[in-house]
Amino acid sequence: MTIAMIGTWRMAETGITPAMAELRAGGSAGDALVTAIKAVEDYPYYQSVGYGGLPNAAGVVETDAAYMDGDTFRLGAIAGARDIANPIAVAQALSQEPANNLLVGTGATEYASTHGFQLKNMLTERAGQKWEQKRQELASKNLNPYDGHDTVGMVALDAQSRMTVGTSTSGLFMKRTGRVGDSPLPGAGYYVDSTIGGAAATGMGEDLMKASLSYETVRLMGTGLSASEALRQAVYPFIDRLTKIGQHPREFSYVALRQDGDWGIATNVEFTFAVAQDDGATQIYIAQPNGDQPDIQPVTAEWLAADKARRQAPLA
Amino acid sequence: MTIAMIGTWRMAETGITPAMAELRAGGSAGDALVTAIKAVEDYPYYQSVGYGGLPNAAGVVETDAAYMDGDTFRLGAIAGARDIANPIAVAQALSQEPANNLLVGTGATEYASTHGFQLKNMLTERAGQKWEQKRQELASKNLNPYDGHDTVGMVALDAQSRMTVGTSTSGLFMKRTGRVGDSPLPGAGYYVDSTIGGAAATGMGEDLMKASLSYETVRLMGTGLSASEALRQAVYPFIDRLTKIGQHPREFSYVALRQDGDWGIATNVEFTFAVAQDDGATQIYIAQPNGDQPDIQPVTAEWLAADKARRQAPLA
Repeated sequence: MTIAMIGTWRMAETGITPAMAELRAGGSAGDALVTAIKAVEDYPYYQSVGYGGLPNAAGVVETDAAYMDGDTFRLGAIAGARDIANPIAVAQALSQEPANNLLVGTGATEYASTHGFQLKNMLTERAGQKWEQKRQELASKNLNPYDGHDTVGMVALDAQSRMTVGTSTSGLFMKRTGRVGDSPLPGAGYYVDSTIGGAAATGMGEDLMKASLSYETVRLMGTGLSASEALRQAVYPFIDRLTKIGQHPREFSYVALRQDGDWGIATNVEFTFAVAQDDGATQIYIAQPNGDQPDIQPVTAEWLAADKARRQAPLA
Repeated sequence: MTIAMIGTWRMAETGITPAMAELRAGGSAGDALVTAIKAVEDYPYYQSVGYGGLPNAAGVVETDAAYMDGDTFRLGAIAGARDIANPIAVAQALSQEPANNLLVGTGATEYASTHGFQLKNMLTERAGQKWEQKRQELASKNLNPYDGHDTVGMVALDAQSRMTVGTSTSGLFMKRTGRVGDSPLPGAGYYVDSTIGGAAATGMGEDLMKASLSYETVRLMGTGLSASEALRQAVYPFIDRLTKIGQHPREFSYVALRQDGDWGIATNVEFTFAVAQDDGATQIYIAQPNGDQPDIQPVTAEWLAADKARRQAPLA
């Protein structure tokens, strides 16, 4: 029996390492996924997920998250939610409800509050400073306000061949109040079927929701394709289509994991991700876009040190 | 050139008839779709869409809507939105924005308010009375609170072969605050590609979002299948799968339209819908579930009269 996890961006490693210890000890894909994503949500220097996430245009952190069980297709999600310390934990709880599985806005906070979940002001001092800086830049220059929209998306496979997928994000920096991307949207932001595999997306949510490519990737893996080949056939033709019709595709990145442990990614931008299998350590990779065959290399110790220094550097 | 529209439930006819007049006069699929869905939203006796929609558990009407352009894949949507007179019009406007295309909760109302859309208390006296009755029933008996969750979903095809799809609903009666179903979710609640066709869903949103079957239907039509055959291959195997794994599928109904005017439906419950093509009148049909081959008949004048009387009957 193979156990494995894959997750988007360098930050996924922070969660996958403790979660793989749980899987090795016989833990379930559901619990491991929540352990992993919670760790990313809690780390204040990941500025696009959970605590420390960058706020919306009004200066408020609003989060989106989803949890899906590949054995049952049950899913739970929250969107445009405030003051929830661990969005992924609330999403998992919602997946167990007979109805009302996707809650937005004040309804999500109300559910978290009445079901014993920790509430927390998700705005860190550092994120507040970044917001103030950006606001001043936007007032003085005519900049594109949107950058920073990295979702942590993970797929987990346990020793009983159960699979889960989850996502969590604070969304687009300087987004409008209530803006939601692909991360809480099944089929677009994530999908999983334990008999086949799972996939999750990160990038510009407004573009990622134009097709159900996480669903499509799982469908294609179900025809016998490898994770890489399924992603290759699902993702790049759609990006090319948007280009051809003048719709200027923005960032698209995906991770996928099959129920036999085979994994793959697709991306049209530089993209980091983390993978662990069986008794191996969590490996962080960096992918460079290259047509439909991204170039994938392990990150170096120098890259990791520079990344950490950049995240924690004093703000100018 | 064929022009055509299809929409879910008997209520679709109220919108399709005036919208087809626009299409015959050379109007666009986008404008016709909005005309059609607005008419349904405005009619106070359709108790699951727009004005007159049944409220949530807190007694407030919250609406979900989406608009998608099959030429560009641009889409806009709102979810868990209050006080917006015509959700579909706001969804269409959001589809034109470069980002922030899906807005939930107070953010949706704020956008509508600052962009000149009509605000309106969507609770009618009749809907308020139904809510009060239901609340008393629930207090006295242990009833399932959830019934009434019919989305109007439509696909339009204009004389320039442009296609659009849209949805609008007040969601599940007695839902939790902030509960959102499949209607604003691309791929699940709706999908359209003008080179192929479009599809839209209605039923129990919590189940409909477990797979991207509107997307899958469009994909299958793209392989050359008829609308009926694409729906047959997309929808029923997934319903059977949920049954086999003990997940008790609830209501699933879909309409689909190809770019050559061919249409179809799939359903596992009694389901009405409306279709119009070229110079023909709008026809309302009633479908009875029958394995994967629903039995479809035009509704009779008696059925229509009884339906109208029921909708407008004084509340007991």
